[in-house]
Amino acid sequence: MDGRISGYGEHVIKFGVVGYGYWGPNLVRNLFEVPETMVVAVCDAREDRLRQVASRYPSVELLTDYQKMLDNPEIDAIAIATPVSTHYDLAMRALCSGKHVMVEKPMTSSTEQALRLIDEAERRRLVLIVDHTFVYTGAVRKIKQMLDSGKLGEIYYYDSTRINLGLFQRDVDVLWDLAVHDLAIMNYLLPMTPCAVAATGINHVSGGTENLAYLTMFFQENVIAHINVNWLSPVKVRRTLIGGSKQMIVYDDMEPSEKVKVYDKGITLGAGTESLYKALIGYRSGDMYAPQLDVSEALKVEIQHFVDCIHTGSEPLTGSRAGLQVVRLLESASYSMKHRGKLVELAPDALAV
Amino acid sequence: MDGRISGYGEHVIKFGVVGYGYWGPNLVRNLFEVPETMVVAVCDAREDRLRQVASRYPSVELLTDYQKMLDNPEIDAIAIATPVSTHYDLAMRALCSGKHVMVEKPMTSSTEQALRLIDEAERRRLVLIVDHTFVYTGAVRKIKQMLDSGKLGEIYYYDSTRINLGLFQRDVDVLWDLAVHDLAIMNYLLPMTPCAVAATGINHVSGGTENLAYLTMFFQENVIAHINVNWLSPVKVRRTLIGGSKQMIVYDDMEPSEKVKVYDKGITLGAGTESLYKALIGYRSGDMYAPQLDVSEALKVEIQHFVDCIHTGSEPLTGSRAGLQVVRLLESASYSMKHRGKLVELAPDALAV
Amino acid sequence: MDGRISGYGEHVIKFGVVGYGYWGPNLVRNLFEVPETMVVAVCDAREDRLRQVASRYPSVELLTDYQKMLDNPEIDAIAIATPVSTHYDLAMRALCSGKHVMVEKPMTSSTEQALRLIDEAERRRLVLIVDHTFVYTGAVRKIKQMLDSGKLGEIYYYDSTRINLGLFQRDVDVLWDLAVHDLAIMNYLLPMTPCAVAATGINHVSGGTENLAYLTMFFQENVIAHINVNWLSPVKVRRTLIGGSKQMIVYDDMEPSEKVKVYDKGITLGAGTESLYKALIGYRSGDMYAPQLDVSEALKVEIQHFVDCIHTGSEPLTGSRAGLQVVRLLESASYSMKHRGKLVELAPDALAV
Amino acid sequence: MDGRISGYGEHVIKFGVVGYGYWGPNLVRNLFEVPETMVVAVCDAREDRLRQVASRYPSVELLTDYQKMLDNPEIDAIAIATPVSTHYDLAMRALCSGKHVMVEKPMTSSTEQALRLIDEAERRRLVLIVDHTFVYTGAVRKIKQMLDSGKLGEIYYYDSTRINLGLFQRDVDVLWDLAVHDLAIMNYLLPMTPCAVAATGINHVSGGTENLAYLTMFFQENVIAHINVNWLSPVKVRRTLIGGSKQMIVYDDMEPSEKVKVYDKGITLGAGTESLYKALIGYRSGDMYAPQLDVSEALKVEIQHFVDCIHTGSEPLTGSRAGLQVVRLLESASYSMKHRGKLVELAPDALAV
Repeated sequence: MDGRISGYGEHVIKFGVVGYGYWGPNLVRNLFEVPETMVVAVCDAREDRLRQVASRYPSVELLTDYQKMLDNPEIDAIAIATPVSTHYDLAMRALCSGKHVMVEKPMTSSTEQALRLIDEAERRRLVLIVDHTFVYTGAVRKIKQMLDSGKLGEIYYYDSTRINLGLFQRDVDVLWDLAVHDLAIMNYLLPMTPCAVAATGINHVSGGTENLAYLTMFFQENVIAHINVNWLSPVKVRRTLIGGSKQMIVYDDMEPSEKVKVYDKGITLGAGTESLYKALIGYRSGDMYAPQLDVSEALKVEIQHFVDCIHTGSEPLTGSRAGLQVVRLLESASYSMKHRGKLVELAPDALAV
Repeated sequence: MDGRISGYGEHVIKFGVVGYGYWGPNLVRNLFEVPETMVVAVCDAREDRLRQVASRYPSVELLTDYQKMLDNPEIDAIAIATPVSTHYDLAMRALCSGKHVMVEKPMTSSTEQALRLIDEAERRRLVLIVDHTFVYTGAVRKIKQMLDSGKLGEIYYYDSTRINLGLFQRDVDVLWDLAVHDLAIMNYLLPMTPCAVAATGINHVSGGTENLAYLTMFFQENVIAHINVNWLSPVKVRRTLIGGSKQMIVYDDMEPSEKVKVYDKGITLGAGTESLYKALIGYRSGDMYAPQLDVSEALKVEIQHFVDCIHTGSEPLTGSRAGLQVVRLLESASYSMKHRGKLVELAPDALAV
Repeated sequence: MDGRISGYGEHVIKFGVVGYGYWGPNLVRNLFEVPETMVVAVCDAREDRLRQVASRYPSVELLTDYQKMLDNPEIDAIAIATPVSTHYDLAMRALCSGKHVMVEKPMTSSTEQALRLIDEAERRRLVLIVDHTFVYTGAVRKIKQMLDSGKLGEIYYYDSTRINLGLFQRDVDVLWDLAVHDLAIMNYLLPMTPCAVAATGINHVSGGTENLAYLTMFFQENVIAHINVNWLSPVKVRRTLIGGSKQMIVYDDMEPSEKVKVYDKGITLGAGTESLYKALIGYRSGDMYAPQLDVSEALKVEIQHFVDCIHTGSEPLTGSRAGLQVVRLLESASYSMKHRGKLVELAPDALAV
Repeated sequence: MDGRISGYGEHVIKFGVVGYGYWGPNLVRNLFEVPETMVVAVCDAREDRLRQVASRYPSVELLTDYQKMLDNPEIDAIAIATPVSTHYDLAMRALCSGKHVMVEKPMTSSTEQALRLIDEAERRRLVLIVDHTFVYTGAVRKIKQMLDSGKLGEIYYYDSTRINLGLFQRDVDVLWDLAVHDLAIMNYLLPMTPCAVAATGINHVSGGTENLAYLTMFFQENVIAHINVNWLSPVKVRRTLIGGSKQMIVYDDMEPSEKVKVYDKGITLGAGTESLYKALIGYRSGDMYAPQLDVSEALKVEIQHFVDCIHTGSEPLTGSRAGLQVVRLLESASYSMKHRGKLVELAPDALAV
């Protein structure tokens, strides 16, 4: 059998990928590695990027004109890995051409755009998935299981730090670049949604956007969430704490293994008058454990989920509604940040589509 | 020479210590270890605490009546390690009895009380030192040297996290208990003072105070500071980042050694139009180094400094003015926190005594 | 009741402490803190050391003549914290004076000396405890529980690293200074004893002893143990791995908390022919957990255990027999090291007293 | 230009890769990414492995017959990523077919085989590189610079730990699988070679090879080296200490950044009589620094180096002589280990080819 072997079956879903910058190569590699998907064309305005595609994937068609990709009837789905400001236009055109869409996070630049994409995808019965990659990691899925099981008890707080020396973006501030990950994860994990947002931040570069920011979210349920993001940190930190009344979780994505640690620690409260206050708080400090995690590549899991949703017509875990929620919080947070922490109340009904 | 050896010289400063709870034993031990000081009496309302003093320091007079300590003419100075709400009264009485005072942080419960103590100490030419212990650590003194030398360039931000599973306090919120350390350090390190404060936080215990809080401070100089404090964290974190235009510092007090790391990392900015924005930001990533630190016990260094100030009559590094600054920021932060992050402007003149 | 309070009851055991260098102050402090014990005299040839005792414990008698301590009928027990070469003589004289003895590790400089002390103590029905402090830590006691419960399955190996930039000793090599800790812990934890020893090492200082060494121990039960000790390491490492067929333990004494981690990892073996070899090894990788540990100070626990043994006349966990085992292994290891790893077989009967 | 773009120039070196198991995919990916090289054929007996090649690199010829690869005149070089026992045969056949060879480590199963390959390659003026990948990492190259500069002073020791829960190999013991990395790095870094070897180890699996081992190497220059390797460790450790008289290095490959730390620590020695011994050892403890490292992928750097050697005809850094040295040490170490640490002397002349 010394010759060519085809790696694919009949019913493979064929992708066009637009944008071959930082994330595009990961998309292409994974779309080739998942048996049910493959890439037939890549589009990018930069010829040097296309040359990189050519050297690794000689079989892929290289395009600089996005319309040609949309016009190709062989292509079932478009993966969009371009700057945020272009997401709405590229996704809308893809939907209008009858293609399913996987779009990088954040889904769009505004709530309004997000609502329009939701409408268009629903009318055409096309699947739109937002690439909230972290939701598909073994770590986040395991935390979700633990939260759903009720093991943590009542949720008290969600506190995340995501800092590093990062690329300063021109078109978006650090909330849209980094906090978007935390909001996507939090939106997936928590069963409740914020009712108010207050953010502070600063821009150190003339003509630039805020390069570090602090975001507090309040919830009806006496829960608080906080996100610390920074493009100008000398060290890379990716750490989330989730405090519950029974157990607490530390999720540290920089750990090579044991990314999720569960602490059997906390306080116990009794009922009583204020004068007995101190006597009524007990401290528990028990074992810690780190559950084994699925180490599958998140993007691969996500692509398989996207394939499943295309076949069944169901809403993805990180579908357009999740994408909208995240954009909505980012919009409010950026507004608050521009006004030095002014509280922005979120109408509960406005959050439902 | 088999017999008693006296460990002390003639001119030793004699202390009375009031409050022998968590911190008192450290004060007594260090006051005995510093050759220029000793303890002659300890006062506490709890007999079991006094019994502990007796077993370790049989020579010390044990008191339950504070006035007897003040009436003892042999005693030169009073060290106060009692709850915050009592600081003002105990310190004022000590000053009025002609004793020098070392008072635990925070100095007082209010700005007004702090101002009165400053007045009283100045009128009587007595030294009042606030026990901002961290200021006397090898780590913080080394960072101060580096900041003063200008090596970091322009200061961009100060970001501190101080969280653990801690004792819930009844009389003060988590800002007064934990952020006080960061404010004391920041006040010592930075050459500028905040012009506005916004804080958010939450209380999870009925009848209690806020047990986690987030504090943002704005400065005139396009600097931002942020402090994250939490009594309900499963892990203990003590980490401060100081970002400068030339270098950045990470101070991690949980590291057994190499507590201070200096990163030769950052961005370089050029002048230009917005269209050239991205081209104008360069990234530097160079060596990291961890300077050797003096490992003397901070409290010992502080006591020696207090002795020096008593002899020379000079203002301590962490004297009453530093104490006032910290109380002022705490007061504003707690107010903001009660109003869900409402911005509190600080009049610059109000900060000067 | 403003006056003197006695910290002690009637039946307190009174200690004389000989040697007030590095470890002596810890002994004295703990002997004062344990309610059933106190220190009445400290002996050291160096007056500056005695002066330190005086300033901290004004009530203690200071001696330069050890015989005066032995002659004091008030003293029940002697704690010896002097160089190894003096242990035998000081302990023997204490036993002959009818005192119980707590002696620093290693117990003696030779097996022969150890055997003589065992004889003397038994004849006089006095308790001799060897200060194998680590055996009394919460970490080691927890590991012992787990090993005894059989959770780890069959033991495969014991591998310890104990390195730092340490004081170069003149009278003993690095095995006697550092590996002694690991041997004491291993001797306590494992139910079996080594049958052969091979050690390598090197001395970098003219006229000195080996300052780094590697010690392998073989056991009848297809178990191997290895200890890596080094006085010339830039970093401090204190880490022990214990591999079992079902679970494996990592004990890292440098961790501020979670010093003991238990991994549900390993291989599973089936029976079969060699040609099927690979198919027969399965890998298990499950959760990790870190049990909560008792954080009592080990020396305090040990002193209380010593007191119990004095009252009941029972053999301490780290009594003279354990001390002998450790000295025996050190003797053999040093011999092997002098002969570049020559295997030294240990007669099983020789290990039994 | 919407169409095919060739990623390659005229003078690209064309590779056949034999073995597409664990390491083969890395070779293929890097050979595609380096502009001067490409892969035209992959050979593996397992069709499922070839299918993986097909799905990712549709342009590559797939072979199960190695001879067809050798017969292809288009192919300039063969990369061998198969089990050790096959290296000699596959490499010899490649050389005899006039192909340059890149062979996985260890180069061969025996010294004799290594000598024959050296002869054959030299006679045919072909380049044979051994894939001692770590030698091409930024970390190891930076350490080499520091050692060559003399900054560390006199070398005292080399101490490496390389442990994890690894695949149990059938054909080689853990020394040949893991210690080979340390020997390759050490052989590159140190200017001297060992004069004697002693190793201990154990096999826990019936019919298997030693799965953990400890290797000591002695040098003429009062230097010692030690390597600790283990397939049955619950944690992954990759840490090497290099102790010098002036500075010391810790190279921790598990650190995400700052893999190399240089400590300005050590001892200073004076001349004197033994009685003055202690007074003559001084301790230095200064700053630590972590130099910035080149983060290029090591395999890419190595392939480019291989290309250069092919063009210039020069001996690679990790050429056949380096490969021979490593095999020689492994052979001696395995022999010693079979004899429970028996010292194996290495004749200096035998080490020179």
